[in-house]
Amino acid sequence: NHDANQTHQVQRYKIAEFDFHTVAQPFVISIWIVVASAAKIGFHLNNKLSSWFPESCLLILVGVILGVILWAADVTRIVLDSHTFFLYLLPPIILDAGYFMPNRALFDNIGTILLFSVIGTLLNTLLIGFSLWGFSKSGGIGAFDLDLDLLHCLVFSSLLSAVDPVAVLAIFEEVQVNEILHIVVFGESLLNDGVTVVLYHLFEGLSHIGQENVIVLDVVYGVLSFFVVVGGGTAIGVLFGFLTALVTRFTDHVRVIEPLVVFVMGYLSYLTAEMFHLSGILSCTFCAITMKKYVEANISQKSHTTIKYFLKMLASVSETIIFMVLGISTVYATHRWETGFCLMSLIFCLVYRAAVVVFLTAIANRFRLVRLSGVDQFIIAYGGLRGAIAFSLVALLDIGLFPFQPLFLTSTLLVIYFTVFVQGTTIKPLVGLFRIKRANKHKP
Amino acid sequence: NHDANQTHQVQRYKIAEFDFHTVAQPFVISIWIVVASAAKIGFHLNNKLSSWFPESCLLILVGVILGVILWAADVTRIVLDSHTFFLYLLPPIILDAGYFMPNRALFDNIGTILLFSVIGTLLNTLLIGFSLWGFSKSGGIGAFDLDLDLLHCLVFSSLLSAVDPVAVLAIFEEVQVNEILHIVVFGESLLNDGVTVVLYHLFEGLSHIGQENVIVLDVVYGVLSFFVVVGGGTAIGVLFGFLTALVTRFTDHVRVIEPLVVFVMGYLSYLTAEMFHLSGILSCTFCAITMKKYVEANISQKSHTTIKYFLKMLASVSETIIFMVLGISTVYATHRWETGFCLMSLIFCLVYRAAVVVFLTAIANRFRLVRLSGVDQFIIAYGGLRGAIAFSLVALLDIGLFPFQPLFLTSTLLVIYFTVFVQGTTIKPLVGLFRIKRANKHKP
Repeated sequence: NHDANQTHQVQRYKIAEFDFHTVAQPFVISIWIVVASAAKIGFHLNNKLSSWFPESCLLILVGVILGVILWAADVTRIVLDSHTFFLYLLPPIILDAGYFMPNRALFDNIGTILLFSVIGTLLNTLLIGFSLWGFSKSGGIGAFDLDLDLLHCLVFSSLLSAVDPVAVLAIFEEVQVNEILHIVVFGESLLNDGVTVVLYHLFEGLSHIGQENVIVLDVVYGVLSFFVVVGGGTAIGVLFGFLTALVTRFTDHVRVIEPLVVFVMGYLSYLTAEMFHLSGILSCTFCAITMKKYVEANISQKSHTTIKYFLKMLASVSETIIFMVLGISTVYATHRWETGFCLMSLIFCLVYRAAVVVFLTAIANRFRLVRLSGVDQFIIAYGGLRGAIAFSLVALLDIGLFPFQPLFLTSTLLVIYFTVFVQGTTIKPLVGLFRIKRANKHKP
Repeated sequence: NHDANQTHQVQRYKIAEFDFHTVAQPFVISIWIVVASAAKIGFHLNNKLSSWFPESCLLILVGVILGVILWAADVTRIVLDSHTFFLYLLPPIILDAGYFMPNRALFDNIGTILLFSVIGTLLNTLLIGFSLWGFSKSGGIGAFDLDLDLLHCLVFSSLLSAVDPVAVLAIFEEVQVNEILHIVVFGESLLNDGVTVVLYHLFEGLSHIGQENVIVLDVVYGVLSFFVVVGGGTAIGVLFGFLTALVTRFTDHVRVIEPLVVFVMGYLSYLTAEMFHLSGILSCTFCAITMKKYVEANISQKSHTTIKYFLKMLASVSETIIFMVLGISTVYATHRWETGFCLMSLIFCLVYRAAVVVFLTAIANRFRLVRLSGVDQFIIAYGGLRGAIAFSLVALLDIGLFPFQPLFLTSTLLVIYFTVFVQGTTIKPLVGLFRIKRANKHKP
C-alpha cells in the first residue's frame, strides 16, 4: 500500500482543500435551523402580517414558495421524512406540551377530554371511513368511480380523524381562549394519539393480512392492543417520570446537568414507547406530567429557567421546521387529484367533527359542573385542526399495498390546508365575535 | 405486490411488536448521556473521591472498567470515532470556552500566549520528531530497533505536541490558579490548534507524496498554508461573530430563538472552517469572542441565562463523554508496545515541554509588565496536558500508509494517561505547596 502510493502520479501538497461531504449532515441541519429562525424573525418584523395570519400559515406558505424555487432549480428533492418527524421533530413539542401542561385544568376536565379523544376519534374514523367506502360503492350523488377497499378507507380515515397537537398548539397560542376550551381541545389532541396509533396500525395490519383473510380473532387482538398501546405507553411514561424525579434528588453537586437529565429522560420515555410500538406521545406526555412536580422541588432556580426557555426554544424550532417542510413537501409529493373523493373527504371531516362534538358534549354535559355552551362546542369543533402527524402517517403508507396512496396524500393535504388556513385564520376573529371569555393570563 | 402479499402465509395481527432498529441511533446517544450523567452524579456523592482525584481521571477509569466489561462480554466494539469527536463532541466545548473567555486577560497576555502556542508548539514538534527519528537511526542509549521515516516521526510529534484544551479546562477548573497563569495555559491550548492542524496535515500530506519525492515547493506551500489555516479560520470566525451580532438586533419579538441563534451560528462557524480544512477551533473561538459583547447587549436577560447554563451543560456532557470513551477506547484499540520508543516519547514530551517553556518565558519576560516567575513557569510546563484531540488524530492515521500507527497510538495514550493522571492529580497539591496566588473568584 505504501509502495502503491508512491507509484501514483505524485501530487503536490495542497494549501487549502474543500470537503463538504464530511460535514454535510450537521451543516444541513444547522442551515435548516438558520432558515427557520430567519423566517420567524422576518414575520415579526412585519407587524401587520403577523397580526392577520397565524405563524403556521405563513411558514407553510414560505415552505411552498421555497419548494417551488427548489423544484424549478432542480437542486434536491425535499419531503418531510416520517422517520425524522416522529423521532426528532415531534418529541420536543410533546415534552414541552406535557411539561407545561396545566395539570389542574387537565384533571378537572379529564372525563370530557377522554370522551373526545377516545370515543370521538373512534367515531370519526368509522364514520369517515365507512362513508367514503359507501360512496365509492353506491354510485350515489357525489360518488366517485374508484374501487376502494373498506380497509384502505379505514386506514385513511384513521390518520385523518385525529386532531393534531402541533397545529392546535400553534393556533391556540395566538388565540387565547379561556382555559377550559383550551385544555379540552389541546388535551384531546394529545391523548387521541393512543387511539390513532392503534387504529392506524390495526387497519394497516389487517390490510397486510388481506380483507378476505381477516378473522374475528384479528379484530379481538386489535381491541386488546388498544389497552396495550394506551396502558403501556402511559405506564412507561409514568415510570420514566418517577425515575427522573428520583435522579434529580442526587444532583445537588452537579446542578449543571439537571436540565439535561430532564430532556434526556423525557426523550427516552418517548423512544422506549415507540420501540415497542406503543404511544410515544402518551408516554412522553405522562412522563413530563409525572416528573414536573418532583423535579421542580429538587432542581435549582437556574436549572428551572434553563429547562423552561430551552424547552420552549426546542419546541418552537421543531414546529417551525415542521410547517416549513410541510409546505415544501406539498410541492414535491406525488399527488393524485379526484375532485369527488378529495372534496368528500374534506366535507366528511368537517361535518362529522361537528356532529360528533355535539353528540359527545350532550353526554359530557350531564356530568360536568361547568357545562359547555353552544359557542364552546363550535370552537371545539372548529379548532379541530389536522396537521403534520396525518401527513407523516399517510406518507408512510406503502404504495405497493395501498395503490390509492397518492390520492389519500392529496386529500390529507387538502384537509390540513383547509383546517390550518381557513379555520386557523378565522378562529381568532370568530372568538372575538362570539365574545368568548378570554384567558386572563398567558400560559407559562 | 398486493397479490404477492396475499399468497404469503397469512400472519395474525400482532398486539405488540418490538422494533429497536428504527430508534437505535437516538436511543444509543441518549443512553450514553444517561451513563455519563450517572457517572458524574456518582462521583459527587462520594466527596472524598472527588476531592482527591480530578473528575477527568475518574471518568477515564470508569471508561476503562466499562471497556473491560464490554470486552469480556463481547457485546460491541466501542472506539472514540474521530469523526464524531471533531464534528459533535468538540464544538460545544470550544464554543463554551470562547464565549466565557476572559477577553481582557486574553488580550493582555496575547503576546505570551501566541509565543507559546505558535513557536512553542512548532519547537516541540520539531524537537520531539527529530529526536525520535535520531534515536531510531543512531542506535545510541535507549535506542530502538525500528525503521522509522522522518516524516512519520514528525506526523506523530505534531499530534503529540499540542496542549489539549479539553484536558486543561477539566483540570484547571478544579485547581483555581490565578488568572494570568490560567489564561496563558488555556489560551495556548486553544490557539495552538492552527499550528497543529497545519503541521499534522503538512507532514501527513508529505508522507502521502513520499519522503523521496518531496521538493522545496511542498514545504513552501506548507508554510503558506499556515497563514491560510490560521488567517482563514480566524476570519470565518469573526465574520460569523458579526453576523450573529447583526441577527440578534432583530430578535426583539422572537426572544425564544435567541439562544438557538447563538449556538447554531457558533457551530456553523466551526463547520464552515472545517469544510475548508481550516482551524475550526480558532474559528469557533473567535466567533464566540466577537459576538459576545454585541449579543449580550441585544438579547434578553432570560436568553442570557439560558445560553450560559445550556452552554455549560453541553460542554460538560461532551467532556464527560470524551473522557469516558477515551477510557473505553484504550481497551479496544489495536496497541503495539515498544518499551524504548514509548518511554522516550513520554520523556521527550516532558523534557522539551519544560525546556521550551523556560526558553520562551525568557523571551516573553523581556516584554511583559508582570513577569512570569520560576514557579509560574513550572505550572505552565506541568499544566501542558495532552488529551482526546491527540488520540483522535492518531486514530485517523491510515495504517496502510503509517505501518507504525499502533505504536504511535499506544505512545500517545501513554502520554495522555501520564499527563492527565500523574500531572493532573498532583498539580493541585503542588499549587498549594508553592503558595501560588489563587484566583479570587470563579470563572463565570
